Amino acid sequence: MNKRKQYLHPEPFVLESGKSLEKLTLAYHTFGRMNAAKDNVIWVFHALTANSDVLSWWPTLAGKAKALDPSENFIICVNVLGSYYGTTGPRSPHPLNGHIYGLGFPQFTVRDVVNSQLLLAEHLGIDKIKLIIGGSFGGFQALEFALLFPGRIDHMVVVGTSAKETAWSIAIHESQRLALTADTTFSGNDHESGQDGMRAARGIGLLTYRTYEAYKLTQSDHDSRLDDFSAASYIRFQGDKLVNRFHAHCYWYLTKCLDTHDLGRGRGGVEKALAQISMPSLAIGITTDRLVPVAEQKIIASNIPGGSFVEIESEFGHDGFLIEGERIGKIVKEFIG
Amino acid sequence: MNKRKQYLHPEPFVLESGKSLEKLTLAYHTFGRMNAAKDNVIWVFHALTANSDVLSWWPTLAGKAKALDPSENFIICVNVLGSYYGTTGPRSPHPLNGHIYGLGFPQFTVRDVVNSQLLLAEHLGIDKIKLIIGGSFGGFQALEFALLFPGRIDHMVVVGTSAKETAWSIAIHESQRLALTADTTFSGNDHESGQDGMRAARGIGLLTYRTYEAYKLTQSDHDSRLDDFSAASYIRFQGDKLVNRFHAHCYWYLTKCLDTHDLGRGRGGVEKALAQISMPSLAIGITTDRLVPVAEQKIIASNIPGGSFVEIESEFGHDGFLIEGERIGKIVKEFIG
Repeated sequence: MNKRKQYLHPEPFVLESGKSLEKLTLAYHTFGRMNAAKDNVIWVFHALTANSDVLSWWPTLAGKAKALDPSENFIICVNVLGSYYGTTGPRSPHPLNGHIYGLGFPQFTVRDVVNSQLLLAEHLGIDKIKLIIGGSFGGFQALEFALLFPGRIDHMVVVGTSAKETAWSIAIHESQRLALTADTTFSGNDHESGQDGMRAARGIGLLTYRTYEAYKLTQSDHDSRLDDFSAASYIRFQGDKLVNRFHAHCYWYLTKCLDTHDLGRGRGGVEKALAQISMPSLAIGITTDRLVPVAEQKIIASNIPGGSFVEIESEFGHDGFLIEGERIGKIVKEFIG
Repeated sequence: MNKRKQYLHPEPFVLESGKSLEKLTLAYHTFGRMNAAKDNVIWVFHALTANSDVLSWWPTLAGKAKALDPSENFIICVNVLGSYYGTTGPRSPHPLNGHIYGLGFPQFTVRDVVNSQLLLAEHLGIDKIKLIIGGSFGGFQALEFALLFPGRIDHMVVVGTSAKETAWSIAIHESQRLALTADTTFSGNDHESGQDGMRAARGIGLLTYRTYEAYKLTQSDHDSRLDDFSAASYIRFQGDKLVNRFHAHCYWYLTKCLDTHDLGRGRGGVEKALAQISMPSLAIGITTDRLVPVAEQKIIASNIPGGSFVEIESEFGHDGFLIEGERIGKIVKEFIG
């Protein structure tokens, strides 16, 4: 783990809903140093349950001698609003009474997430950015950021993402939330609340991150057992892992946040919003991505005036955005020149 | 609803596990009449949460002037062991003490399901069968039936199915079971036990029955709402529908049963088992089936000596096996001549 910083915003932070958060805290990591010309800033956006330590979760893309090299760049990543890794969220204490927000946390949108990050950009004195980049939910944020920090970004790269949350993903999230709330402990406000439901919700997520082919290849049993199948153990194991590092309330709020993603809201629709993005932009798709198929990245690339699309042949499905970091890195280096 | 019959087996029914069920009851439907030559029998196998009234759930395939016409054929369909529609299962009373089995019901396999149906075949005096046919779990049963009722079946047609349960499907079922058991009421033994968990489990199922494309086409919202999305309502609505007609305990047991499907168990593997199937057999696949992709039906067709494979171009995913009944009917009619 690399060292995390925190920024405490001194003013109330007003959400799209009109509600506001007092004492908003943003956890973030920076790697490398801003150069004198201030033109080496790279801003990375993380996905659903990740954190701001981008070198730990995207090591094939970001790190020494990688495409995003902190010895040459000043890399920033912020833990998203509503998460569990140091930024204000459902498991934070309410600043007025010290009680954990729990399910009393206000609902927030992807645009709120990005607006909170702009406060940090101002605090850090970021005037221009060489590259913004994110995959999946990170791509949602990158797209919003491109429109909310206009004229000061040189390049954008998004991977396995969409300009608006799809009906397919919303259906997936609703199933996850049904699993979360089926666990009657979810309505509690403890560290352990909702763990069984989150195990199931994580299982659903995992199904969408990979493919039939990948499961067949890696989780098939070649004996005559009647129970304790490898694929079932894998799902349970991954559920346990998430339970040890995340909270069901954050998971619930973040899936609700994903559903609000609509770059075109208040901007005349998705196409018009994308048309306003002025920097050269690259949308990368993974051939086997069943969660956010390449059709979605083609929509992004074809509606941004300086947009282009690249497809990576990979068996890893949506997870390819993480696993194929090295190939993504090569494409990014070539793209930003 | 057409009239359901029940058969009460007078002897204990011994399962693969060695456990036995007393007073096994099988609910079944028959349509039409057996002819004098006894050569017009069609046996249909139903899928996960369906029942024995095949004319109600597969109306595009079975019915007057359809491919499976009861005016020409004697059509039989049996509600599977462990289900909720009249056949002995977790919601049946234990014959010794009258208490509902609940989670004390013994685990059973696909082979057990078919072995129970063979008792009915004997009871009804079925000597030969013109056609066995089933989709999804119904296909699992048809394949087992083909091997357990050898030499007396003229044709087999299976749709959207596999010779062995895949790691992919097992992972899906484990996620469903995590959702079922996350509902703390699941461990009760009431009519309402586990309903919230089953809503979530059904949501997971629905995701696998259709595709990203189908959800996009039918469940997208074209306004700027921030909540109450159509796709989410659809998932909840379908969950409520299942809760009104099925029980979480049956759902749990039946997914466990699916996982046991392995035509090759005790037969030297899947290929050798398929090679023993002697009648002309047709495996039909749906192009967009993400649950049981066409690769699985190709395995079936290529390993049965008289096997062939047909692909139906359809946007309906795994649900195509039900929705495309008319097209399946045409293919079946041509196949059986």
